[in-house]
Amino acid sequence: MHHLHREKLLSLFDDNQNGLVYVQGANVLHRYATDYEYPFRQESNFLYLTGVNEPESELLLDLKKEEYHLFVPKRDANYAVWHGYVKSMESYKEQYKPDHIHYANELLDVIRNLNPETIYCLNDEQAEFLEDLDGDLKVETETLVDAITYCRLMKTDWELDQLRHACKINNEAHISLMKAMKAGMFEYEAKAIFDAVQMKHGLLQDAYNGIFAAGKNGAILHYVQSESQVKDGELFLTDAGFEFNGYASDYTRTYPANGKFTSLQAGVYEAVVNALDTCIADTKPGVEMENLHLNAARIMMQGLKDMDLVKGDLDEIMDKNIFALFFPHGLGHFLGLDTHDVGGYPKGVERIDRPGIQYLRARRDLQPGMVITIEPGLYFIPALLLPAFEDAEKAPFLNKSKLEGMLDFGGIRVEDNIAITEDGYENFTDVPKSVADIEKAMN
Amino acid sequence: MHHLHREKLLSLFDDNQNGLVYVQGANVLHRYATDYEYPFRQESNFLYLTGVNEPESELLLDLKKEEYHLFVPKRDANYAVWHGYVKSMESYKEQYKPDHIHYANELLDVIRNLNPETIYCLNDEQAEFLEDLDGDLKVETETLVDAITYCRLMKTDWELDQLRHACKINNEAHISLMKAMKAGMFEYEAKAIFDAVQMKHGLLQDAYNGIFAAGKNGAILHYVQSESQVKDGELFLTDAGFEFNGYASDYTRTYPANGKFTSLQAGVYEAVVNALDTCIADTKPGVEMENLHLNAARIMMQGLKDMDLVKGDLDEIMDKNIFALFFPHGLGHFLGLDTHDVGGYPKGVERIDRPGIQYLRARRDLQPGMVITIEPGLYFIPALLLPAFEDAEKAPFLNKSKLEGMLDFGGIRVEDNIAITEDGYENFTDVPKSVADIEKAMN
Repeated sequence: MHHLHREKLLSLFDDNQNGLVYVQGANVLHRYATDYEYPFRQESNFLYLTGVNEPESELLLDLKKEEYHLFVPKRDANYAVWHGYVKSMESYKEQYKPDHIHYANELLDVIRNLNPETIYCLNDEQAEFLEDLDGDLKVETETLVDAITYCRLMKTDWELDQLRHACKINNEAHISLMKAMKAGMFEYEAKAIFDAVQMKHGLLQDAYNGIFAAGKNGAILHYVQSESQVKDGELFLTDAGFEFNGYASDYTRTYPANGKFTSLQAGVYEAVVNALDTCIADTKPGVEMENLHLNAARIMMQGLKDMDLVKGDLDEIMDKNIFALFFPHGLGHFLGLDTHDVGGYPKGVERIDRPGIQYLRARRDLQPGMVITIEPGLYFIPALLLPAFEDAEKAPFLNKSKLEGMLDFGGIRVEDNIAITEDGYENFTDVPKSVADIEKAMN
Repeated sequence: MHHLHREKLLSLFDDNQNGLVYVQGANVLHRYATDYEYPFRQESNFLYLTGVNEPESELLLDLKKEEYHLFVPKRDANYAVWHGYVKSMESYKEQYKPDHIHYANELLDVIRNLNPETIYCLNDEQAEFLEDLDGDLKVETETLVDAITYCRLMKTDWELDQLRHACKINNEAHISLMKAMKAGMFEYEAKAIFDAVQMKHGLLQDAYNGIFAAGKNGAILHYVQSESQVKDGELFLTDAGFEFNGYASDYTRTYPANGKFTSLQAGVYEAVVNALDTCIADTKPGVEMENLHLNAARIMMQGLKDMDLVKGDLDEIMDKNIFALFFPHGLGHFLGLDTHDVGGYPKGVERIDRPGIQYLRARRDLQPGMVITIEPGLYFIPALLLPAFEDAEKAPFLNKSKLEGMLDFGGIRVEDNIAITEDGYENFTDVPKSVADIEKAMN
């Protein structure tokens, strides 16, 4: 399927030019000065263009002839003893279907024979690698990044299938944990249950360092310690997903450890889910993420107002960025070979300099083939609320006496994975989400 | 407990000198050019000296005053929102008990105040970091590596307790997998079962990329794909362990997927376990690893000879290195904060005779407090056997017709973790090992 990705990339270049695209695959990564090897994970752009999931590989695309050269490392017999069989050039060719296959040490000869005017690279490091081979090569590092980013942003049908499958397993993992959850569980036990479901289906690579957060840890946005015990009456927040063929899933669910929402928990929860469901229903081509973000914030602020946790005029609450005290992160991001996938900001589009929305990772109007996360949340973060109580601008909007009682509440985030279609969206996430469905699943 | 490690290190330096030891802790590691963060794992030497398990920390030891300076990063309120509470200097001081606590940006001022003749560093990178701060600093990179290596080689009682606990959980993980194993299981399912046991006990960091190898994959020494299905009649090899407080366990077990050894499997297996048990029984202070290695090889070759897989005179089999065709890796390694722990590899182990420091060289004969793995194995590796069949020197020792039938056999490795005591050893590993015990556990 990766030949479609190469064709898409080639279509963006002028094929009258005598140019080459050069992309380096990843090497095995070690921990500091030890021989601890991180599980091999191919660099995403290289994986996108080749499907080659082996270390120390390289690619050249000949823009004029539209030909694909794959370079693979030469292994000796000793490699077979330690790492498996040494593949023949024929088996590489059969598996990955390059037009030409070479050993890595032939790279310079091949380049010289092709005699390109320009070689397009992804970054300075790879450009310098080429310039070190031959100082006369003309290397350029901007065009290719923009081109691959554009390609990766709109998923092919095959890519959507990979994401759908990653999500199918993620559905099962989140549901298994929801059903197993109980007061007294340690966060690491939750991670054990969740990861085991992914791994028994063959998904061994997490899409990111998952968050398993009991009670107040749910208000730490990137909490990864996984060491606390969840108490009866507390919420548990799980933000986790794994990769399938490199493609990520990324969901969040939050529910009471004991399986029964308190009315306070249910009130905050419903404000978040209401925002999520409204954003999903609004998702279609042409919609802008920042508008979804602001609408989600507004819905959640209305929820907090209905609960008498914030007060005052809703327009003012929005204008004065009071929402950012409770919802300090972005509504969502693109999803693909990276969890925070490429393409969030088109060239020339800057981040919005405004609390909360400054962290929005995607500012583009949505188009068919894009896949996004939508993940509104409400948090009660001491580091934000305590200073706000003392802030003359913000304090009037806050019900301090009630909020002071919620500094251990933690946070609630609910997140689905959504593909944009021609006429709307497809929701890949199928994990209980309403208060009623969660309580039913847990009891 | 880490103060004992610092005292041990200080005792190796001449305290008349006006010198400093400088060690940098690890930063969070990202995957290529993405924001994917690997789970934070402290650099082992820094962890050894401080117990500080947080990124971006640094240490200075003042050799003259025998004082410990800890440097921690200055975090803003935004950090609290994303990563948790910002610790006060007081809480750092209380938790880690340095004599002096500073922010990282005060490093140069503190060094200048202490005005050292020499700063001892671990490597060129850290030396260059200091020289970039001030080109006049006199930095040296050999002494400290040797000194810390010496310290880490002999474990303190506290360290032995950490290893014992890592092994206790590893016992349970290996036994759980042994009991769950059945023909038809995928390697990744085995990994799911094994990892879940570790994680539900709070051990979230693997000690190395574990090996879960069905059938012939067992003959690939560093097989990590975990994607095959084990067939009825095949062996399954598991080489895996996790860290507790940074300290590694590292066991291997091999058993038939269906719970019943064939006579061929049992024959090879018993040769390996016989070698292992003999080596363990021989383990005591003064013994040299290389002698254990050769004795293990000899016992295993006798086993293969008894099975008529190799032939000829045993002394000649050893002299001509025929054993290396079936046992191509080392018998074991030191174990500690790194799985392949410091101090044990076959580099030139010379006494360091340098002013200002007096310590014993890291010798290869075993001493109380060292912890090792012992892991003999027998493998039927096509990349080694096929050329050997054609080799006039080696072929006479090989029963080609029988061995040709075993090219899919895979390999058998059995590995325990052993602490050297004053009068012998302590075996931390308690997982069924004899043919009878394994068959009992699996049926």
